[in-house]
Amino acid sequence: MQFSIRPATVNDMSRVHELIVELAVYEKEPDAVKICVDDLINYGFSSQPEFHCFVAEVNGKVEGIALTYKRFSTWSGLVLHLEDLIVTERLRGTGLGTALLDEVVKYGNQLGAKRVTWVVLDWNESAISFYKKKGAAIYKGWDWVSLDEQGIKHYLSKL
Amino acid sequence: MQFSIRPATVNDMSRVHELIVELAVYEKEPDAVKICVDDLINYGFSSQPEFHCFVAEVNGKVEGIALTYKRFSTWSGLVLHLEDLIVTERLRGTGLGTALLDEVVKYGNQLGAKRVTWVVLDWNESAISFYKKKGAAIYKGWDWVSLDEQGIKHYLSKL
Repeated sequence: MQFSIRPATVNDMSRVHELIVELAVYEKEPDAVKICVDDLINYGFSSQPEFHCFVAEVNGKVEGIALTYKRFSTWSGLVLHLEDLIVTERLRGTGLGTALLDEVVKYGNQLGAKRVTWVVLDWNESAISFYKKKGAAIYKGWDWVSLDEQGIKHYLSKL
Repeated sequence: MQFSIRPATVNDMSRVHELIVELAVYEKEPDAVKICVDDLINYGFSSQPEFHCFVAEVNGKVEGIALTYKRFSTWSGLVLHLEDLIVTERLRGTGLGTALLDEVVKYGNQLGAKRVTWVVLDWNESAISFYKKKGAAIYKGWDWVSLDEQGIKHYLSKL
């Protein structure tokens, strides 16, 4: 299969949003996507963009995305984080995901990132074994803590 | 105890570095801190800073820090992440940590963040229970995947 990987443009954001929603539906969380196409444009293409996105294009259509942003480690310095790697269901297993991950690692290296990070579900043994084969280390034992909008309001109301 | 919380300045970075090292030593990882004071200054005080840090000052000395940066969720939008919350050992349990966390949540709210996130060790039940009381949700089941500098080089050498 012929495909190309390139940085996303403003014009891709509508299709990027579709793929984000497709994955949320696949994960049985159809209402989880609270952001709209304009949010993606505003967050991603301002003078200080909040993310950097790559797209995989097949026959002129975007069929996969890798969305990244910079983090900062007080031990290592700059870190590139891969927030989402999505390939449309029909084209999974065709190499698009690996090609997108390759591009992300190259980009991290160009940025001077000391690490490239992402998360994986702890039961997803095939993914974990794939990442290990690629040279990645897997860290267990950390839980995420999250205050959502309601939680932030509640927290502030108690101060 | 009297203390004040304020945004860090360039002049605080030397003491911020000391506190980062103090924590690494406490965690029995004395050699883990690869960054130096100049790295903190360069990353944190450029035209596009990679982090935003608060300090807790007691009698004119910085005794605690909260280091944050922005993340981006494809479901929610802007997220403020608390990377490190450090209070010097001698002053733990005096309210500095809570005051720093309060400031972080306020800052997230000002930024328009849809979530404030951080991580916690999964065996740290007292911290988890404290965060829950503050209204936070705890997400289990995700492992971190990390390519360090060596891993990035190895990955790229195979392309």
